[in-house]
Amino acid sequence: MSIPPEAFVLPPATRGSLQQRIRQMVTEGVLAGRFRAGQKMPSSRGLAQHLGISRITVTLAYAELVSSDYLTARGRSGYYVSDSAPRAPEVPLRAPRVESAEFQRLIAGRFQGLAQIDRPADWEAYPHNFIYGQADPSLFDHQNWRLCAVRALGRKDFAALTQDYYDRDDPLLIEHVLRTILPRRGIAAGEDEVLLTLGAQNGLWITAQVLLGQGRRGAIENPGYSGLRGILSASGTETVNVDIDADGLPPDAIPKGVDVVFTTASHQCPTNATMPLERRLALLDAAGREGFVIVEDDYEFEMSFLKPVSPALKSLDTEGRVVYVGSFSKSVFPGMRLGYLVGPPSFIKAARALRLMMLRHPPGHIQRTMAYFLSLGHYDSLINRMRNAYRRRRQVMEEAILTHGLSVAGQGGFGGSSFWMKAPESVDTEVLAERLRAEGVLLEPGRAFFDPARPVRNHYRLAYSSSTPVRIPEGVAKIASGIARGLG
Amino acid sequence: MSIPPEAFVLPPATRGSLQQRIRQMVTEGVLAGRFRAGQKMPSSRGLAQHLGISRITVTLAYAELVSSDYLTARGRSGYYVSDSAPRAPEVPLRAPRVESAEFQRLIAGRFQGLAQIDRPADWEAYPHNFIYGQADPSLFDHQNWRLCAVRALGRKDFAALTQDYYDRDDPLLIEHVLRTILPRRGIAAGEDEVLLTLGAQNGLWITAQVLLGQGRRGAIENPGYSGLRGILSASGTETVNVDIDADGLPPDAIPKGVDVVFTTASHQCPTNATMPLERRLALLDAAGREGFVIVEDDYEFEMSFLKPVSPALKSLDTEGRVVYVGSFSKSVFPGMRLGYLVGPPSFIKAARALRLMMLRHPPGHIQRTMAYFLSLGHYDSLINRMRNAYRRRRQVMEEAILTHGLSVAGQGGFGGSSFWMKAPESVDTEVLAERLRAEGVLLEPGRAFFDPARPVRNHYRLAYSSSTPVRIPEGVAKIASGIARGLG
Repeated sequence: MSIPPEAFVLPPATRGSLQQRIRQMVTEGVLAGRFRAGQKMPSSRGLAQHLGISRITVTLAYAELVSSDYLTARGRSGYYVSDSAPRAPEVPLRAPRVESAEFQRLIAGRFQGLAQIDRPADWEAYPHNFIYGQADPSLFDHQNWRLCAVRALGRKDFAALTQDYYDRDDPLLIEHVLRTILPRRGIAAGEDEVLLTLGAQNGLWITAQVLLGQGRRGAIENPGYSGLRGILSASGTETVNVDIDADGLPPDAIPKGVDVVFTTASHQCPTNATMPLERRLALLDAAGREGFVIVEDDYEFEMSFLKPVSPALKSLDTEGRVVYVGSFSKSVFPGMRLGYLVGPPSFIKAARALRLMMLRHPPGHIQRTMAYFLSLGHYDSLINRMRNAYRRRRQVMEEAILTHGLSVAGQGGFGGSSFWMKAPESVDTEVLAERLRAEGVLLEPGRAFFDPARPVRNHYRLAYSSSTPVRIPEGVAKIASGIARGLG
Repeated sequence: MSIPPEAFVLPPATRGSLQQRIRQMVTEGVLAGRFRAGQKMPSSRGLAQHLGISRITVTLAYAELVSSDYLTARGRSGYYVSDSAPRAPEVPLRAPRVESAEFQRLIAGRFQGLAQIDRPADWEAYPHNFIYGQADPSLFDHQNWRLCAVRALGRKDFAALTQDYYDRDDPLLIEHVLRTILPRRGIAAGEDEVLLTLGAQNGLWITAQVLLGQGRRGAIENPGYSGLRGILSASGTETVNVDIDADGLPPDAIPKGVDVVFTTASHQCPTNATMPLERRLALLDAAGREGFVIVEDDYEFEMSFLKPVSPALKSLDTEGRVVYVGSFSKSVFPGMRLGYLVGPPSFIKAARALRLMMLRHPPGHIQRTMAYFLSLGHYDSLINRMRNAYRRRRQVMEEAILTHGLSVAGQGGFGGSSFWMKAPESVDTEVLAERLRAEGVLLEPGRAFFDPARPVRNHYRLAYSSSTPVRIPEGVAKIASGIARGLG
């Protein structure tokens, strides 16, 4: 295979004469392993044209490189990287990496020390993977997703695939969100009240940028989604933790002077509590009285297999106080990165302007594929299949939990994809999690969900989204055994 | 086609008795047009199970809906939406949209009045489209992109497609960026010095968030990329405009006290000037002396068909002072939204942490598709094809410009995809652009590129990226005629 002329960049004139620079260009590439023994060099004419120099100059350089054994000539066939050229070392030699002190000065304190999600990249290799949020290949509708993606790659859809939408969204997908998805949550919205995002994380980030920041105050559930803590903290927002109870967020416990209240009302993260209707109405009333707005993160609403999901908080919102954050990632797959925000027109307008500046728009191909997946009914089938699987897995996990005497801390009347667990007071579940890896068990320590000022160390989350029924009992048994043996 | 049970959400208990709520659920759906005449209702068993109520309750409600002519019963076949049910009005009746005043208070002044990119959504319908940055279907390698995308959808790549990468990137694509793309710019980088982005816009946004903000000062080229102005302004950074000359940004003109200098050194946006080597070295020296860092936006480097592209500014950076912003969007297609940042490890680390919070990562499927497109050589072929086409188009446009006596303001020795033009002093090119639309001509007024405090109204940009040679002369003629007739 020929090395294309474009792979050659002439070092700058500071590096010596033209002949020297041409030679360096080749030798550095060979030493760095970019040009390998036996690869064909561009013709002298082709390289000369690319570099904007005369052909004879290249030919002279090639001849010199042959005598220094970097290249070899094969008659009329051309020049090749020599088999006996100096080889690239196993670890390529590079100048030690220098960094201007100015970077340290500018970055200091920013985006450091935020709670990183600590999950091993090779999580699939663990027999007992109780980590939340990864895709389960056995449940995913691979074939139909592929068909929809291929269809969205067709010539007819070329514009959707390739053009820069700027600040707009794929009209086909918006149509489906407005007519099919949102009504299932009881939400009626118009086109100027919805915006596509790169997933719920992106939706929460955008929301915090638009509504909060320095000098503003945001209230979050405690325990609550750890990613949200990081978002508020990074934006300079003052974060107020509101302790939840068995029914989720208590409106009475929200202090005065809060600008935005974040809630996972239908399915509390991480305790799985469902906020009852009366409390939802009370929360909306409080918003009116105290002058805050509400951000509802409606994750996992599709996994309502124990009893029907209650309508979203937003469906009760007659005064325009709620921003709704939705996502396709939990129900389709996380790597797709697609979600939506629903809110009052002025909020959506500002969010759209911000999204344009941040990243323009989610890739057109992904949007169109999702639109087809929805319109052809595959989404509904997938949700049903996932629900049935999760129902079965939950049963198995519940039995195993009972059998081995572990304690459930949160009761999800809803369904969902995990149990919120509580180990004995003295157990540090971060230590427990670390030690159980050696036994092939992955679980999520609960500390990241709590207010860092009042750490709680003995909770943990066990998800069944990535575990088949046959693997669950043994994994749970190992956890129980680990706790009993004082591993945590 | 049967309406799935999931499409039915029971209104809350505040709306009346269970029977009333079931009826409202159906009647509202019919009136809103979501359930259409002739559609089959779920079985009473299926709906009862979904709603968690008794089957007899549903049957009673169905019977009531039949007598009020919303539904019709067809014997054993089941219940259907009646042909004579009340129809949805042409424009669905919705409650007037209410918005809490709190949103206005929180949003006021944010992300408002930013220079919006004003391009008609139906740009393809214009015979003479001289707008920069859209994909040209005739040049795009549709077939091979499709093959690579399909391959990236295979079972083998399932993990890349579906999993949540959190803060990591597709190793296959990173490998290609490090070994194939960056060396062509003379840049040697390690894995901890590169981060994938959602395109150059996203890369610039992230960079500004990491390095700038309130109390910091950023210098930009004037005229310069308008999107960058918006990013700096939105972040609260004090923006300093540095007037460029025929060689781009003059290092001597950068005032003291600047933290970050943004430059498009290889191909100045919008004037197409190329910064000579001596000036690049001077800029790097100035960075060291004055204590600022440099952000190099290397857009369009692939479109170097007039003469070989000079190595990137970053390739001369021995002191670790430069952040490099790259993008695949100009060379592959904008709707893909993929790019990369290259910089010192501490910068990349902070940028990665921020990206995780903002949006996690670019979709896995897009990353893997790009990796295949690169590894199979299709990217190189596409670049060559685009270069040849652009060379031809540029020739045609240059001839037309000469023929019709228009004035070029910037000389691109490099190549590129546009001409930077200057109309007579008295012409307002925003007005000219507006009026020329009626004649099927789209051009970009230059005002958005300039410092708003010192507006310049008579420049404009003519891109040939979306125009075939046959359409160019007539379009240019119309522009000349429009100027002569005083349209602007």
